[in-house]
Amino acid sequence: MRHVFAIATFVAIARAAAAEEAWYPSKYGKDDTIGAANNLSPAIVVEAARLVKTGRTYSLGVTTGPDSPAFGKHRSFQIFTEAFVIGEPLGTNRATANDDFLATWMGIGSQLDGLGHLGIDFVYYNGHKERDFLRPHGLLALSTDKVPPIVTRGVLLDIARLKGGPLAGGTAISKSDIEAAVERQGTPIRKGDVVLIHTGWLASKEGDPKAFLESEPGLGKEGASYLASLGVVAVGADSWGVEVLPFEDPKEAYPVHQILLARNGVYLLENMNVGPLAADEGYEFLFVLGQPKFAGAVQAVINPVAIR
Amino acid sequence: MRHVFAIATFVAIARAAAAEEAWYPSKYGKDDTIGAANNLSPAIVVEAARLVKTGRTYSLGVTTGPDSPAFGKHRSFQIFTEAFVIGEPLGTNRATANDDFLATWMGIGSQLDGLGHLGIDFVYYNGHKERDFLRPHGLLALSTDKVPPIVTRGVLLDIARLKGGPLAGGTAISKSDIEAAVERQGTPIRKGDVVLIHTGWLASKEGDPKAFLESEPGLGKEGASYLASLGVVAVGADSWGVEVLPFEDPKEAYPVHQILLARNGVYLLENMNVGPLAADEGYEFLFVLGQPKFAGAVQAVINPVAIR
Amino acid sequence: MRHVFAIATFVAIARAAAAEEAWYPSKYGKDDTIGAANNLSPAIVVEAARLVKTGRTYSLGVTTGPDSPAFGKHRSFQIFTEAFVIGEPLGTNRATANDDFLATWMGIGSQLDGLGHLGIDFVYYNGHKERDFLRPHGLLALSTDKVPPIVTRGVLLDIARLKGGPLAGGTAISKSDIEAAVERQGTPIRKGDVVLIHTGWLASKEGDPKAFLESEPGLGKEGASYLASLGVVAVGADSWGVEVLPFEDPKEAYPVHQILLARNGVYLLENMNVGPLAADEGYEFLFVLGQPKFAGAVQAVINPVAIR
Amino acid sequence: MRHVFAIATFVAIARAAAAEEAWYPSKYGKDDTIGAANNLSPAIVVEAARLVKTGRTYSLGVTTGPDSPAFGKHRSFQIFTEAFVIGEPLGTNRATANDDFLATWMGIGSQLDGLGHLGIDFVYYNGHKERDFLRPHGLLALSTDKVPPIVTRGVLLDIARLKGGPLAGGTAISKSDIEAAVERQGTPIRKGDVVLIHTGWLASKEGDPKAFLESEPGLGKEGASYLASLGVVAVGADSWGVEVLPFEDPKEAYPVHQILLARNGVYLLENMNVGPLAADEGYEFLFVLGQPKFAGAVQAVINPVAIR
Repeated sequence: MRHVFAIATFVAIARAAAAEEAWYPSKYGKDDTIGAANNLSPAIVVEAARLVKTGRTYSLGVTTGPDSPAFGKHRSFQIFTEAFVIGEPLGTNRATANDDFLATWMGIGSQLDGLGHLGIDFVYYNGHKERDFLRPHGLLALSTDKVPPIVTRGVLLDIARLKGGPLAGGTAISKSDIEAAVERQGTPIRKGDVVLIHTGWLASKEGDPKAFLESEPGLGKEGASYLASLGVVAVGADSWGVEVLPFEDPKEAYPVHQILLARNGVYLLENMNVGPLAADEGYEFLFVLGQPKFAGAVQAVINPVAIR
Repeated sequence: MRHVFAIATFVAIARAAAAEEAWYPSKYGKDDTIGAANNLSPAIVVEAARLVKTGRTYSLGVTTGPDSPAFGKHRSFQIFTEAFVIGEPLGTNRATANDDFLATWMGIGSQLDGLGHLGIDFVYYNGHKERDFLRPHGLLALSTDKVPPIVTRGVLLDIARLKGGPLAGGTAISKSDIEAAVERQGTPIRKGDVVLIHTGWLASKEGDPKAFLESEPGLGKEGASYLASLGVVAVGADSWGVEVLPFEDPKEAYPVHQILLARNGVYLLENMNVGPLAADEGYEFLFVLGQPKFAGAVQAVINPVAIR
Repeated sequence: MRHVFAIATFVAIARAAAAEEAWYPSKYGKDDTIGAANNLSPAIVVEAARLVKTGRTYSLGVTTGPDSPAFGKHRSFQIFTEAFVIGEPLGTNRATANDDFLATWMGIGSQLDGLGHLGIDFVYYNGHKERDFLRPHGLLALSTDKVPPIVTRGVLLDIARLKGGPLAGGTAISKSDIEAAVERQGTPIRKGDVVLIHTGWLASKEGDPKAFLESEPGLGKEGASYLASLGVVAVGADSWGVEVLPFEDPKEAYPVHQILLARNGVYLLENMNVGPLAADEGYEFLFVLGQPKFAGAVQAVINPVAIR
Repeated sequence: MRHVFAIATFVAIARAAAAEEAWYPSKYGKDDTIGAANNLSPAIVVEAARLVKTGRTYSLGVTTGPDSPAFGKHRSFQIFTEAFVIGEPLGTNRATANDDFLATWMGIGSQLDGLGHLGIDFVYYNGHKERDFLRPHGLLALSTDKVPPIVTRGVLLDIARLKGGPLAGGTAISKSDIEAAVERQGTPIRKGDVVLIHTGWLASKEGDPKAFLESEPGLGKEGASYLASLGVVAVGADSWGVEVLPFEDPKEAYPVHQILLARNGVYLLENMNVGPLAADEGYEFLFVLGQPKFAGAVQAVINPVAIR
């Protein structure tokens, strides 16, 4: 019974947190709330804009609808579209209109995981404690509406191509995989970059939401730590969780999320539709993300644009 | 009573529609569904990317929250943020997480009006009839998830500066106002551009939602027709409706919406936070919009990014 | 393509409706909107109250939650419970509070089907046409908030007991089944009664929502017509749809709903938890239903009370 | 800033709770979760049924809609009604249907306040601590779906009539008011009763939601304690909060809610439409409440029925 042990649990948690190595404050300062977005700069923006050569644009967001595969059994999406005018149109110009309402979880479809999404022992990026910033109607800190526009160089790592085809569920992407892809493509990763990984998962599990969600290839802990060490702003993939599933250590849960979000302030971009970019060998591009700014949101449904 | 006259009304509507001058098919072809987005091109993207010189980025979306002023009395926004893990954290790595759910109208805050939003006599852009494409859970055509990324040159028309200060509610922006702003700024409007208008309304009515919604300065019919004739893809402003309110002709309702959306397939971008761009005299920039792609959505809460 | 044939379809519908035998106006008058609730009367209430002898009460509603089996893939239930006070309690008396929000379909769990729920060719009880009374935010007529309290004699027909055990899916309950149950129990059905049927389905499919929804025993067309002819106000059962599934004629859809709701104005009470009543041989009782009155609602989640 | 003082606050709360006089465990036993509903009994039901003499029924719930006055600025109600069948009807019997979805707070309109709604220092009825039973998707204890049907004698106290007209906002109803009303009416209050108070507020503020919510006449602390001491199961009124507003002691918040819900396990019934009962001098009646059973709900929109 959780009731009985609640206080004991809190004590245990406090001790565990104390025993933990110091993973905060953040290297971006003890008051920082935007994490690796600090690595963005005007100089990087200018340089990234120079990558635009063909004028092709790529919508990296998938369409989110009622049938979108969604994490957990609770996440769902419902849209209500309706006529705003019934009967007689408005005015002599006979205006009619439609409107729409959403009842949706934000963690569905293509999404930005903000720094308030996943933590360690109720502590999130830079030492933010859940009880201090979690409120029923919006986070008081670390919410996705506070993330500045992410405009920078994007690098696509085509791991699927490197490995000769779509990766199988459970395949952990390592530091050496990343290095090999970088080498093959000739696209070194730089501080401030957004890195997107093409695993082939989204395309290969199309139409099979159960298989899509049950496992996935993705970043292993080593690969995640490596990318964080390079100073990337965000890591995305064509899978629902970016990290490998089942987890490398079956006793752990979402260790890659912890490494990226909690320990390093690196954002996650899930369900990124990078297949078309990979098909065009678009390994380097201008990446632009302007996420909808819902006050206090933990996550955000997004549609970043790659431009090359 | 609407009951009694419903059939008579339908007959009247049919006659009115027949009497109407032919405003469709669209110049982009009888099967077109994306309107002025057809004016985008790779060449325009390449050229627009060259406008990036300072590396400054601007988040054009305002934050949408429970207190955001909203059109009509029905539109509202609610967010629910919650702990995903209660009690004992997950795994030996002690993962905890938060999640969020939205119950919100899409036509709130910074928004993209899709071509299915406003029509004439139940007929929308390119002759799409409401009964054919309006369904309770998503439009069958003209929805915002089908709009390609809008990546192009953005032009800010600082009408507030031109006129010596924030415009008053009810001020209609005319063709000659637009020409004067273009002349003052040295930024001719070109086919494929996105035009954003700075009226000063958003800033001057900050904290007074009632006044903000009751009226607004904005495009008049002549100004709207002029912009459409230039081939712009979208028109935005720092007001909730882009168009002047009260309407120029008090017997009409949303005539500018009709001119732009229905007759010309030009998108509307409402509640654009262009104040900072105006302060920097950022009259020309790379405009990037990747709207969240909710299947069948009439509108979309957005956060376009201006880069210069 | 629905687009192309929409007009043809409307014409076909109009013809079909014209060819249909005259099933309206209602016997309760051409302006009637409450159907068989007209059969209620003060005299019936007084008489029904006299059935209370043991003082036992039965909650006929099941609990509706996120895991409740629900018709179709769209119907769902979500509840959000939250602290209203965070941090410091209110006042010197240190008040704290909790609140809750629902995002739910009404047609889930124990439900009242109103007369606006199911019709024939877009025509509902007493000739109400869908286009006249269906509005996006509430029916203009036939909504469940307009149904008066249903206080009357309740009769439980224990068909499961009659047949020697829970009925199998697809078992149609006929007029003779009803007559036999009435005979066995000694409870003739009278005008103004609410009739509840115990099939055993709810209990026998407990924990197997898929099987629960795929089929069900229930009223056949003959049985439904017979009950309607007796003047009952409502018919309920311990199944999600009251009527037999698969339908007796595989080319038809919900014919029993049509007979009861559309043709006779008899209400449906779905997912009624009548097992405990049956166990107590509570075949006759005072039935009281006060449904929550949501303006314009098609259906209503209910919890009628049987008292004996 | 709440962030900074959160820990200090928790310490302060702990001390305050320790200093508090012992108001739990409940007189109904240390494990009790239903409070004064324990005072119900079959004998009381049988006796209450004998009060039915005229056969008149009264729907005590008001209709809840988008315009219903609601506590706080967050509580709201939205309903979405829609065609389930578009285009071609189903089957040879041409079935069509409508459906509805609610996005609503439960604490709106006529409502049952459950014992998990209001507490003292995060402690609720019978010592239940918020952190132990409050979960994001339903209370683990004290939820309204667990309340048994409330079937008992109802007593209407017509305080408005006693005082010669609708009470003004801020009028506290005292023990002697209750005694005088009981005396005038000849309806002593007994253990197990539901007491409803007619103040005239609902009718007198009709059409003025702002005035309706800003204050209200209602039970004072003395009156509430008196009713609790008599063993009543629930107390309702024709006002949104049952208790007097402004509070008798301006430094307190919802003391009557605390007395009834937290200290005595007595339920609150808000926005009860008792005007018609009062008009008929229906001071004694059979009261029946079967609330919709939403799993884990804090409150419930209800429509109790009075029968006399």
